[in-house]
Amino acid sequence: MSAYQNLTELISTIVAPSQEHVEAAATRLDSLTKPVGSLGRLESLAIQLASIQRTDRPHFDKATVLVCAGDHGVVAEGVTSFPSEVTVAMVANFAQEGAAVNQISKAVGVDVEVYDVGVMSDTSFVPSVHQVKVGLGTANMCEGPAMSREQACEAMLAGVDAVRTLVEKGASMVCIGEMGIGNSTSAAALTVAFTGATPEQAVGRGAGLDDAGMAKKRAAITRALEINNVADLDPIGVLAAMGGFEIAMMAGIVMGAALCQIPVITDGFIAGSAVLAATSIAPLTKGYVVFSHRSVEPGHTVLYRHFGTEPLFDLDLRLGEGTGAVLAVPFVRAASQVISGMATFAEAGIEV
Amino acid sequence: MSAYQNLTELISTIVAPSQEHVEAAATRLDSLTKPVGSLGRLESLAIQLASIQRTDRPHFDKATVLVCAGDHGVVAEGVTSFPSEVTVAMVANFAQEGAAVNQISKAVGVDVEVYDVGVMSDTSFVPSVHQVKVGLGTANMCEGPAMSREQACEAMLAGVDAVRTLVEKGASMVCIGEMGIGNSTSAAALTVAFTGATPEQAVGRGAGLDDAGMAKKRAAITRALEINNVADLDPIGVLAAMGGFEIAMMAGIVMGAALCQIPVITDGFIAGSAVLAATSIAPLTKGYVVFSHRSVEPGHTVLYRHFGTEPLFDLDLRLGEGTGAVLAVPFVRAASQVISGMATFAEAGIEV
Repeated sequence: MSAYQNLTELISTIVAPSQEHVEAAATRLDSLTKPVGSLGRLESLAIQLASIQRTDRPHFDKATVLVCAGDHGVVAEGVTSFPSEVTVAMVANFAQEGAAVNQISKAVGVDVEVYDVGVMSDTSFVPSVHQVKVGLGTANMCEGPAMSREQACEAMLAGVDAVRTLVEKGASMVCIGEMGIGNSTSAAALTVAFTGATPEQAVGRGAGLDDAGMAKKRAAITRALEINNVADLDPIGVLAAMGGFEIAMMAGIVMGAALCQIPVITDGFIAGSAVLAATSIAPLTKGYVVFSHRSVEPGHTVLYRHFGTEPLFDLDLRLGEGTGAVLAVPFVRAASQVISGMATFAEAGIEV
Repeated sequence: MSAYQNLTELISTIVAPSQEHVEAAATRLDSLTKPVGSLGRLESLAIQLASIQRTDRPHFDKATVLVCAGDHGVVAEGVTSFPSEVTVAMVANFAQEGAAVNQISKAVGVDVEVYDVGVMSDTSFVPSVHQVKVGLGTANMCEGPAMSREQACEAMLAGVDAVRTLVEKGASMVCIGEMGIGNSTSAAALTVAFTGATPEQAVGRGAGLDDAGMAKKRAAITRALEINNVADLDPIGVLAAMGGFEIAMMAGIVMGAALCQIPVITDGFIAGSAVLAATSIAPLTKGYVVFSHRSVEPGHTVLYRHFGTEPLFDLDLRLGEGTGAVLAVPFVRAASQVISGMATFAEAGIEV
């Protein structure tokens, strides 16, 4: 069976979170010892978590961030401020716990797992990295599709498998993160293709691009849209044409979370583009996504408008790696603890 | 020695956080394995924490929320949607871990300590509550000062002592929280007196007031300002005239944190009014305050404008108890872990 057939079969079994438990959770929240609605966004988060776990007493504790790494052929167009070699160097840095996502995860109590799904060079010298490589970096999307459809599906299946492994180990939620020099160009191209935004609206400075680099980035996206005849493609075709291995894997993690009925906490603009791909390919995944933060990248605001939702916070982050997603884990734990552990007015003997 | 003399002497020994370590921390942040500035507000928080702890490798872990409870004579004016009896009932609920602050603290790993500094009725039947009562609820500020100056100073000293006790037990930061039916009227009155805002700008619905109640709340504040000749008072006089025992104690906690050189995480509008009082009485305390969230109460936005700062997040909370402050604790831990634990580009062997 092809990866495409395999993935399509899996997707057909995804169901949305339980509407019945949305109502039960809302009723329970209004009985608890607090003014009605006074926990604001934490209450809507609690309701979402209840509907995902299909109970009005949800419990979420153990969390893992899956950091997916891959390289991008489009770097040849001069669209980045760091060279592709930084991807593998950062993979080694993750393994040595030197990166921001490691330290934030340590502070918050989240496990970190690193996946090489498409780094240009060999990373097997780094012991703790999961080897699920689909290719040695993508092809240049300005000259044709970045990946074949089959490769994109393989990367998504790697994401589904990663979530299943986690859930077997007891994880109750999963965060997505990424590393890949060039991937903000890929994310911007996907944003333009899926939302109808212009390259001007979707393109930002990534890790610190100057104005000349910005012009190249916009031009590269315009060429990639044309050469790949993106308007004629289905969602998997769009992802294959302009995505990245790590973006496809993150899209697969979103699907895996929906299959396992656990929340998936998304991160910044690149992770957001993976959610965009996942929800375009498999719309019922959307109810499982917890939106953590708004990135400085302008394309991320385009994505939030498209999703019709707002993130939990905005700390002007623009790092990726899953850093913002991990910072949202305490909010998920707190929201579920509130709805499950608080006393009702009746239990506390308070007349209202 | 009077409480006033005692407090004044303590205040005179407060020093601001270290400017030298602001610069050292900023330099270190720019050497770490991430694009410069890419952790946004988490970087400015890390710099503040470094300057408070006087090191470029700050460490923050153990945290406690001090929930200060007190009643308000102004409730007689019909300015609340719950009766004063709810204050003592909620104190008992805190002790049984049934309230939102208990559950959020459990999720995040924060200790909760409850102080009765001015509840109308006896709370000594609740075993775990710290008894530091200064009075049995305040007087009605519409008929004269809510507290005497000496009482306000006693409540502030109780706050200083509470922080000192915590620090002896190893706490690295403190959160402030409160419970007190009527205290959003007190907070609004302090906001008007200290910032020059109008009652219309400072008054909100508290725990759920209707329009008629809102009109009474505005009228009560206008009367309290007049009868107490607030324009002629010094900052301690303003706090005594229109504050509450729990607000004065929280102001004292802010002073205690500055004295012990640890961060104090503030909460919503009522806690914000305590920060307003503390920084008006002892301006050098301000550098020790971490501003967690923006409450739905309109007066809180007035306060942020006055402080010239922005909170870390906005979850549409309006509960108090310290719930928002506790939710910011993971951000404090993460920011200090980032600056202390991340590898530099040189250490990671990455050329930039």
